[in-house]
Amino acid sequence: MAEVLGKMKRTHMCGDLRLTNVSEEVTLMGWVQKRRDLGGLIFADLRDRAGIVQIIFDKDISEEAFTKAEKIRGEYVLAVRGIVKRRQAVNNNLPTGEIEIFAEELKILSEAQTPPIYIDDNDEVSENLRLKYRYLDLRKPKMQKNMMFRHKMAKVVRDYLDENAFAEIETPILGKPTPEGARDYLVPSRVNPGKFYALPQSPQLFKQLLMVSGMDRYFQIVKCFRDEDLRADRQPEFTQIDIEMSFVEVDDVLSMNEKLLQRIFKEMMNIDIQLPLQRLPYAEAMDRYGSDKPDLRFGFELKSISDIAKDCGFKVFKDAIANGGDVRGININGYGEQFSRKDITKIEDYAKIYGAKGLAWIKLTSEGIQSPIAKFLTEVEIQMILARFEAVEGDLLLFVADKSGIVFDALGHLRVEVAKQLKLLDKNEYKLLWVTEFPLFEYDEEENRYVAKHHPFTSPMDEDVDLLETAPDKARAKAYDIVLNGIEIGGGSIRIHRSELQQKMFKALGFSEEEAWDKFGFLLEAFKYGTPPHGGIAYGLDRFVMLLTGNDSIREVIAFPKTQNASSPMTEDPTEVDEKQLKELHIRVSLEE
Amino acid sequence: MAEVLGKMKRTHMCGDLRLTNVSEEVTLMGWVQKRRDLGGLIFADLRDRAGIVQIIFDKDISEEAFTKAEKIRGEYVLAVRGIVKRRQAVNNNLPTGEIEIFAEELKILSEAQTPPIYIDDNDEVSENLRLKYRYLDLRKPKMQKNMMFRHKMAKVVRDYLDENAFAEIETPILGKPTPEGARDYLVPSRVNPGKFYALPQSPQLFKQLLMVSGMDRYFQIVKCFRDEDLRADRQPEFTQIDIEMSFVEVDDVLSMNEKLLQRIFKEMMNIDIQLPLQRLPYAEAMDRYGSDKPDLRFGFELKSISDIAKDCGFKVFKDAIANGGDVRGININGYGEQFSRKDITKIEDYAKIYGAKGLAWIKLTSEGIQSPIAKFLTEVEIQMILARFEAVEGDLLLFVADKSGIVFDALGHLRVEVAKQLKLLDKNEYKLLWVTEFPLFEYDEEENRYVAKHHPFTSPMDEDVDLLETAPDKARAKAYDIVLNGIEIGGGSIRIHRSELQQKMFKALGFSEEEAWDKFGFLLEAFKYGTPPHGGIAYGLDRFVMLLTGNDSIREVIAFPKTQNASSPMTEDPTEVDEKQLKELHIRVSLEE
Repeated sequence: MAEVLGKMKRTHMCGDLRLTNVSEEVTLMGWVQKRRDLGGLIFADLRDRAGIVQIIFDKDISEEAFTKAEKIRGEYVLAVRGIVKRRQAVNNNLPTGEIEIFAEELKILSEAQTPPIYIDDNDEVSENLRLKYRYLDLRKPKMQKNMMFRHKMAKVVRDYLDENAFAEIETPILGKPTPEGARDYLVPSRVNPGKFYALPQSPQLFKQLLMVSGMDRYFQIVKCFRDEDLRADRQPEFTQIDIEMSFVEVDDVLSMNEKLLQRIFKEMMNIDIQLPLQRLPYAEAMDRYGSDKPDLRFGFELKSISDIAKDCGFKVFKDAIANGGDVRGININGYGEQFSRKDITKIEDYAKIYGAKGLAWIKLTSEGIQSPIAKFLTEVEIQMILARFEAVEGDLLLFVADKSGIVFDALGHLRVEVAKQLKLLDKNEYKLLWVTEFPLFEYDEEENRYVAKHHPFTSPMDEDVDLLETAPDKARAKAYDIVLNGIEIGGGSIRIHRSELQQKMFKALGFSEEEAWDKFGFLLEAFKYGTPPHGGIAYGLDRFVMLLTGNDSIREVIAFPKTQNASSPMTEDPTEVDEKQLKELHIRVSLEE
Repeated sequence: MAEVLGKMKRTHMCGDLRLTNVSEEVTLMGWVQKRRDLGGLIFADLRDRAGIVQIIFDKDISEEAFTKAEKIRGEYVLAVRGIVKRRQAVNNNLPTGEIEIFAEELKILSEAQTPPIYIDDNDEVSENLRLKYRYLDLRKPKMQKNMMFRHKMAKVVRDYLDENAFAEIETPILGKPTPEGARDYLVPSRVNPGKFYALPQSPQLFKQLLMVSGMDRYFQIVKCFRDEDLRADRQPEFTQIDIEMSFVEVDDVLSMNEKLLQRIFKEMMNIDIQLPLQRLPYAEAMDRYGSDKPDLRFGFELKSISDIAKDCGFKVFKDAIANGGDVRGININGYGEQFSRKDITKIEDYAKIYGAKGLAWIKLTSEGIQSPIAKFLTEVEIQMILARFEAVEGDLLLFVADKSGIVFDALGHLRVEVAKQLKLLDKNEYKLLWVTEFPLFEYDEEENRYVAKHHPFTSPMDEDVDLLETAPDKARAKAYDIVLNGIEIGGGSIRIHRSELQQKMFKALGFSEEEAWDKFGFLLEAFKYGTPPHGGIAYGLDRFVMLLTGNDSIREVIAFPKTQNASSPMTEDPTEVDEKQLKELHIRVSLEE
């Protein structure tokens, strides 16, 4: 059997050749994108990671190569030696379109059957088929770009953090189940019968321990795991950029991360980001945008009219306020004429998804006010409302009256939905925002107690420490999220570093000292021996890359993702295993339910 | 409650201060290494990741700081603002020994109980205690250096591979059980009742699929998992530098990797490595060193004397050869006088560990030959043996006669053991070596069939393809290991990229076509659609870092390793879990055997 490549050594990538290479002898290797015969010549487009170039097989140049070329079909793998020539009919759609290669030698490295999916960005096949043949799907130029982008972005992050004295330190994948977290993936232990490891939901405790250990600045780009029911942008395993620093306050973490973000946008997108980034306290974000992750690419800010509406003639408004609720609205300023009554009814249906019972509205047309609620309001009330929103002709005001949670949620989603309908969401515009001062707790109706909104190690704001005992629902945390175009791409906090405050926190969460020690004993123990103030952040890398590459699903930026059923159509996992294996692990399958 | 850090911002790292900083006002944060009182002053050594510096609290400078300083003890965490001054009594043991800080402000950031282990490289406590208090153990300067070294080395590897067009692509942690591998860790699936994921033993199949997908050059620094019984240098999870390239032959992979190794040694050790590295075919490595991972820091090469011994009067030699075995020896040249009869008996005991029944020897002293076997040999035979080893006065020859496997194993280990006793193993000398042309198969007595020595996707050498059917035991593979000072730090191969050869390989391994498809169907399917020639390598990062940092256990270079019992004394995993959790996963613990 002949050596596979023999003396042939690749000299260039297909996609890199340009006019400057004319007359050079080159050796290329790649896949046949297409082949066609024309005037006694065989044309083949050869594809590699860098792009596509046209090869010509001419009997007069090499009869041997020509004869072999007669056999080639799509996706054959070739090695071709030839001369680069200027192309007569320039193809402006290809970066290599000004040149072509006249082949002098051809080796067929691998034949190929007709692939079940086309190697074409626009191949519209089911996602299941794409995942089953992922190795073919990944041949698509778009998917290759996604993978290269992701690689480069991780590199940019690592370079920046390394330059700034952060050390990447690996933490265990086989660890302890997470108290107070989502559902864990478990791994039975063979040598410790009846016991289980858990896959980490995040390296949270380890990164705090690394701060206790004096590592000072840690990061890790690391796989994390959550056994939750999957949505479009969730995967059983996902990747975090996990960062922790010692001797810092909120401002230090934010400004370090802003510079990281600036670097990412510059190197990946060639976009200059102005620093400091906008910062909005949680309360203000809710008040103005009805969301803790507002999209700032457009306005339509929320305003309350409860003061005006509390005594008005419109029962829906009055009752909502009487029941402790709120009336708020947004002004779709300048776009009123684009919304017919029918359109508004559709928007109302959308608001109902988020719990709104209905949508009140006022439209300012050239013929005056249109509004189903105007008849319940006095002229003064209407004028006060219009003044509140600085409403002018062409505007449309939308109102929701309900418990404030529902008002925020409905209007928060509504402003995005309306902006989407108006095509105000420019994929090439990037608005970054810090949301800060999150509530420390949220009430868990199911467990009938307060739970940590971020996690139980998040520090309260210094001025709110006393609220832990008196009014936990009012206590704010040294916690922050980074939001990009209305999507949270990361979040973190300053941690509690003193045992006595951590104990108070556990008390507020309703844990007895024993429970606290049972759940977090090793961290509480560690805190006894000298703990620096510390804090950090974690970014969801998959989602961040998805946004920057303009994709709608994280599965587009993960090489081998799972389906919504948490399975892989390609490798067919998960799968049944031998009884013998299970026996070694001291477990049995138990399917009855 | 006051803000934790208030207006204090760290300006320098403790360990970085030098004479050039004299007169500067600095703010430092760190741990108290020790505190002592002297002449009305309080001295504290403050430690951070960069090192240690001396702080002086003087009542005349700041009474408030002095009063607080009276409370501090070892491992308290401090923030100190002060002025750098030239030190009178220079401490040459510290890089900061020429200066000291006179404190003007002190904040005690965290108090500390007396830690259960000393923060001192020479603290000789049990490893179990070190692991239980790993966050304290990691405060030791040596451990901090290990972690920083590991971080930097991973960075160097990533930089080099990125510069050379390799893309880091993440592959799944939740995957399919590995056929033909070690024991897998399994993860029960909740949404697919009765089915399991396996944690990867390596990303082998995924990296090959990425080559099928045209990714061209892939790498990943990635966690891998093997549920095997643990030895000193094994962990349930370990980290690989995993590399794969398309359109390459053995030479391409080796020369790319040599340049990577050159870069690592230059940047991490400041050592210039000469390329190309030495290459030894497996057969020659066995023949000369009795090992497929010989330590080349010293000689003592093996030589056969079977031709001389086959008809000699020494029954042990003669019988071994008659039974198809071998007689080989090594010359401990120049060191004969250092070995008494008693010493040689000890070496013999060592050889017996590896199956040798005994050890024959000849010592050339100034008074002539000493040897218990001389009396069975003719003068001519003795002279022929001495000539074979070029033996002169002061030499010691050691012989093993047995089946060749035992001879190689015993002498291979013996030469290292003797070199160790003679202190010839210089930790600061680094000898790199490629071992190539490994056997394709090895016979598995238990399974009563040939199994792949590397893995079933390893390509045979072109000239040995026909041996797959006729004499598989003689077939050599395009497989290679990289060996550093007698320890394998990485290995890889050129893979099979053609279905028909892969089928032949499976046949030689005794798989029916059905079994092959059952085990590796998705790979065989992928190979149908155009597969480039490809190959790669994987390094064991833990072991590599261990060797370069001069450690004897990989646990010294892993932040949070497991014990030999695969458990963590700190976090106490693995652990028992709720019945409810197991029920959701459709499994039950079953402890009966």
